[in-house]
Amino acid sequence: MSDDLVTLEDVEAARDRIADVVHRTPLDTSTTFAELSGAAAVGLKLENVQRTGSFKIRGAYNKMAQLSGEERERGVISSSAGNHAQGVALAGDLLGIDATIVVPEVTPAAKVEATRGYGAEVIVEGDIYERSYEYALERAEETGETFVHPFDDEAIVAGQGTIGLELLEQFSDLDTVLVSIGGGGLISGIGTVLKAHEPGIRVVGVQPEGALHAKPSLERDELHVLEDVDTVAEGIADARLLETTFRHVRERVDEVVGVSDREIATAVALLAERAKTVAEGAGAAPVAALLSDDLNVEGERVGAVISGGNVNLSEHAELTRTGLFELGRYVDARLALEGWPATLEAVVETVEEKGAELDRLERARRGPNDHPNRIPVTVGLEGSGPEHLRDVLEALSERDGIEVVERGLDP
Amino acid sequence: MSDDLVTLEDVEAARDRIADVVHRTPLDTSTTFAELSGAAAVGLKLENVQRTGSFKIRGAYNKMAQLSGEERERGVISSSAGNHAQGVALAGDLLGIDATIVVPEVTPAAKVEATRGYGAEVIVEGDIYERSYEYALERAEETGETFVHPFDDEAIVAGQGTIGLELLEQFSDLDTVLVSIGGGGLISGIGTVLKAHEPGIRVVGVQPEGALHAKPSLERDELHVLEDVDTVAEGIADARLLETTFRHVRERVDEVVGVSDREIATAVALLAERAKTVAEGAGAAPVAALLSDDLNVEGERVGAVISGGNVNLSEHAELTRTGLFELGRYVDARLALEGWPATLEAVVETVEEKGAELDRLERARRGPNDHPNRIPVTVGLEGSGPEHLRDVLEALSERDGIEVVERGLDP
Repeated sequence: MSDDLVTLEDVEAARDRIADVVHRTPLDTSTTFAELSGAAAVGLKLENVQRTGSFKIRGAYNKMAQLSGEERERGVISSSAGNHAQGVALAGDLLGIDATIVVPEVTPAAKVEATRGYGAEVIVEGDIYERSYEYALERAEETGETFVHPFDDEAIVAGQGTIGLELLEQFSDLDTVLVSIGGGGLISGIGTVLKAHEPGIRVVGVQPEGALHAKPSLERDELHVLEDVDTVAEGIADARLLETTFRHVRERVDEVVGVSDREIATAVALLAERAKTVAEGAGAAPVAALLSDDLNVEGERVGAVISGGNVNLSEHAELTRTGLFELGRYVDARLALEGWPATLEAVVETVEEKGAELDRLERARRGPNDHPNRIPVTVGLEGSGPEHLRDVLEALSERDGIEVVERGLDP
Repeated sequence: MSDDLVTLEDVEAARDRIADVVHRTPLDTSTTFAELSGAAAVGLKLENVQRTGSFKIRGAYNKMAQLSGEERERGVISSSAGNHAQGVALAGDLLGIDATIVVPEVTPAAKVEATRGYGAEVIVEGDIYERSYEYALERAEETGETFVHPFDDEAIVAGQGTIGLELLEQFSDLDTVLVSIGGGGLISGIGTVLKAHEPGIRVVGVQPEGALHAKPSLERDELHVLEDVDTVAEGIADARLLETTFRHVRERVDEVVGVSDREIATAVALLAERAKTVAEGAGAAPVAALLSDDLNVEGERVGAVISGGNVNLSEHAELTRTGLFELGRYVDARLALEGWPATLEAVVETVEEKGAELDRLERARRGPNDHPNRIPVTVGLEGSGPEHLRDVLEALSERDGIEVVERGLDP
């Protein structure tokens, strides 16, 4: 294929190859996100419930299933601290190919175990990812193992493209499809299918503002490489496209939208609350774009690919908390109480009367601005929205002996 | 129908009635839960992604769609602080029937708003649920509104039974099906379908230990009423079956299993982590039973109905945290540091080297047992399991100047 682009036929061949081992993931047509975005309908393609918790198995299996008998004998190697590792590991297990994954030293033990759980050998090598990558390439040269790149490979791109085939069957008359971009393999594959089927479908890439390289690359038609990346969405914290994906993105992506980490966290929270689904930051980014003012989807039928759900539960809880703050559904307020502890009872009573949740209550450590004859207390309140929480804080401040010192809400 | 039981034909008629408005929810055949339980295969029937976030719309719509023109004119009324409220509200909206829901005073504003969001009128009346219920019944007598009971009604039972029809189509050769029991409407309907189809399918009810009434009712064949209920699974915190559901449970349920609140929390955590799905306590209870030693599903094909996902995000985070503790994947340990702050650096370094997550770190308030010349520090550590965390704590205690005072782990 070398200089040419992946074709619809390549993706259809990939589909046949992976059909027996990969889940056809569900499409959720929850009305909430249509209402929130102004779209006519929104379909969430749930690759977070794919085997290994992300789409990566599609590309990895498609690549590895095409290795020759001799190549299979020699095994494969890759480097990844994330979803690609598990994709390669499971594909190796299913195909009976020895797989070795090189991970950087900082990789959480839970991720190492998950990868080992699929039967791969894990080598810890390198203080940062780039070192692990180099080590894997060097070892591949020595041992003859095939290096399975996470995205810079036509077979990988074709495998990820199979999501596009399913999406077309599951959700008719698409106007716009939102796909996150890290290295660009996912959108290269999906864009291939959508543009072949109906060139009028708008293919929109989504990136974190802290890793926004594909947007300038596409707009200036020149590969843009970032010096630093900084985003909560680890799965797409890449600094650049590579040769294969840049070739595809320039032809098959219409535009790229940047979303902030706060928008991503809000999307994670809304996906959990409304769609009852656990997405990692990279998986939620398309929903962040959907809800962003930077993208107009008024009256459209929109597909959003929720690419993965591999986030540990503490991290997920942190993200949803940030989301609740952003939605004005949670405040940490500071109160000054006169006549403790009677006023403390009044706090509890008022919050309950107003139908808010008292998630947290703490006698706070005194600070320089606290009145020496008042008891400082912090409360964590969850409510139905900013108006409700303002109303609760208003009611608190109207009680005798309670002063709301810090509201913890935008004015 | 009165004294007779709901029939398969009643459920099939319900299916036709609700087909256009209710989601056919997905069945997730994640292999994780099969591995964890020893079952041959486990199918999760995801009613948490049903419209309104629970199965309740099925029964409510089936009931309300059968009202006469005159009854529709007069409207419906119900009482509920939970999922049934939203089911009745949405069914009212879809059918053009005025719906009024009576909720107790303590109902969170967010739930009131969700119900109002579906176009229902919400009346706040009663300090506890029973008062709201009585008020709704009284008002129905006065106004001629039809009272829509959450479960003591054949039309409701038939509606919930439609889940059984879908389950049979989606997951072949079922051996055992696990369904949570609160008032018993859900299992009455599903049991009806399963026993009509194949009497050999084992229908297992699941209840929290703190609301375990159906188990003695079934075992003694005599209606058992609890004086108190106490469980984290609000959606099934009922004290008894009622006439309709007891009739069905005694004929169509084989056994009932009790699960602890800790087991429920663990199931909520595993559903989020492995199946990427957000379940409320009642929805996760069948998975708790599946993983419990009290139920043997060795080699079986097991269906588990995840009945709902309406849990607020802070609550969900609390449940998953309890689950992580139960799984030995999280510890709050207390350390005593000599030579602060250099030893603090050693703590951070050791945790990182061992691949654990330092979720929390706090200079703790000095307690009576703390050495006067050591700095007390608490750390929240997340790891891949109890062995891993023991290993991390061991490594910490081997460092000069660090003493692990409390391990926060079972011995």
